[in-house]
Amino acid sequence: MERDFLKWLRERVPPDRRLAVGIGDDAAVLRQWLSQSQNLVVTADLLADGTHFQLDEAGPRRVGRKALAVNLSDLAAMAARPIAFVISLLLPRSDGGELAKELYEGLLPLAEQFDVAMAGGDTNAWDGALVIDVTAFGETTAGGPLLRSGARPGDAMIVTGDFGGSLLGKHLDFTPRVAEALQLHQQFTLHAGMDVSDGLLLDLSRICHQSGCGAVIDTTAVPVSLAAQELASRSGEGKTALDRALSDGEDFELLLAVEPASADKMLAQQPLAVPLTKIGHFTAQRGLQERLADGSLRNLTPNGYEHR
Amino acid sequence: MERDFLKWLRERVPPDRRLAVGIGDDAAVLRQWLSQSQNLVVTADLLADGTHFQLDEAGPRRVGRKALAVNLSDLAAMAARPIAFVISLLLPRSDGGELAKELYEGLLPLAEQFDVAMAGGDTNAWDGALVIDVTAFGETTAGGPLLRSGARPGDAMIVTGDFGGSLLGKHLDFTPRVAEALQLHQQFTLHAGMDVSDGLLLDLSRICHQSGCGAVIDTTAVPVSLAAQELASRSGEGKTALDRALSDGEDFELLLAVEPASADKMLAQQPLAVPLTKIGHFTAQRGLQERLADGSLRNLTPNGYEHR
Repeated sequence: MERDFLKWLRERVPPDRRLAVGIGDDAAVLRQWLSQSQNLVVTADLLADGTHFQLDEAGPRRVGRKALAVNLSDLAAMAARPIAFVISLLLPRSDGGELAKELYEGLLPLAEQFDVAMAGGDTNAWDGALVIDVTAFGETTAGGPLLRSGARPGDAMIVTGDFGGSLLGKHLDFTPRVAEALQLHQQFTLHAGMDVSDGLLLDLSRICHQSGCGAVIDTTAVPVSLAAQELASRSGEGKTALDRALSDGEDFELLLAVEPASADKMLAQQPLAVPLTKIGHFTAQRGLQERLADGSLRNLTPNGYEHR
Repeated sequence: MERDFLKWLRERVPPDRRLAVGIGDDAAVLRQWLSQSQNLVVTADLLADGTHFQLDEAGPRRVGRKALAVNLSDLAAMAARPIAFVISLLLPRSDGGELAKELYEGLLPLAEQFDVAMAGGDTNAWDGALVIDVTAFGETTAGGPLLRSGARPGDAMIVTGDFGGSLLGKHLDFTPRVAEALQLHQQFTLHAGMDVSDGLLLDLSRICHQSGCGAVIDTTAVPVSLAAQELASRSGEGKTALDRALSDGEDFELLLAVEPASADKMLAQQPLAVPLTKIGHFTAQRGLQERLADGSLRNLTPNGYEHR
């Protein structure tokens, strides 16, 4: 299987200016591209059938797309420009090479869209379920990497897009906020940022923890997705649409700590195709608090994927 | 589990001069290190329990070591200097964090020995067997990357170490030939090279295929390991020790195509701690041939892991 698949893959993957050596040798070689001021950003995300996705429900093309997209989202979280990726596959033996091809057919259009080079990887078969691990590389831009640890008391808490209910489709079809992160990092003063993958509150608590600060969230300002509303109206779980927006995972939106004056400009200009919303601010006092309709504050406990 | 494990990992992994951002953010950031003439070399190798190793036989420390070692061997095959790696783990849920720690305890000493930075990764749990995927980065050196495609007719075929029977232990405990590849690439004229992972003849056929040439192998000159002899004496499979040296996998020795005059010097000098042996030469005529004791040639069919 491997030989036929590799032959197919070599023909299917377009040549790339950044690859001195592509698929077929012991390793890939990427041409020197970093200027003196830039650093290499590296991220890895592994997805397994039955744990991170349901292959029979999602279909292999959307799974392949997602495997690359989650990595691009991590590069966006660092405000890094994507360069290349490698992909390791562990395929169910029964599926032969067809599954691998379908995964790539889902993944390669996204690679083209984000101008990121497929640099190689490793393909294996076994008796278990499908596993995909993508490692992606990017370069920092003039503003340096956007870290989780830079939020300061007084910073505005700003998000892209809306939240909750990603299980209805967005968890597979989301757009990694790469262009958005690069543009905002260039035009405004971002102190910290990450992509929201494990739930808004839980990921917010991580920025606070790493920045040594706290936050007040105006929950009435949180943009709640139509999907979250749909799920809330359906289910008997007693979860409101806002609950879902605060704790559902896999939104893959940006959560940013922005210098206050710069945040005002950003919100006034709305420079992106996707909405930017201020949902709170960072505080010197540790812990997460919710601002209620009457202006009073209530302590919040972050919930998200980690606690399920 | 993940939080405790990450806490342990952050304390266990020593700080590294090459890491601007290490474990704990959305991605790692490696400081700019490539000079203008150097390129980035990237390789990935995924290993799964029951397929690539037997966790209960090998033990987690040797498995962790191997997961990094096979990647270092791929960098050696390119004559690249190792820089950093990321590791994605898919852990059996029942094992908690202890298995992960043991894997790292096997892996980190090898990382230290080869001066390669642990840059991060992804840690997951699931109901399946252990899967480890390592992606490693290196830089090319003055001679550029050592490819599979550069062998020329007349080149000497030279190997490090000995072959066969790696199942008795070498498949876990081998030393990646990184220092050896860098030294030989600097001091001699290497035209092509790879690490022998799927069996000597099969990997030789790959160099020939990618170089558009053939090869004559002096099978009487092939260094046969004691382990291959031991297995041959034990088994009722009818395989000789030489058969094993030619087709057992996971030797992780270097197979090189060397310019003839340079090869003579190399063999006379024996500059490495491990023996260098000439086992044949490359030819303009395609295909693999074996030189018999009477000097006549016989066609060979490569056998190795791929055909099992």
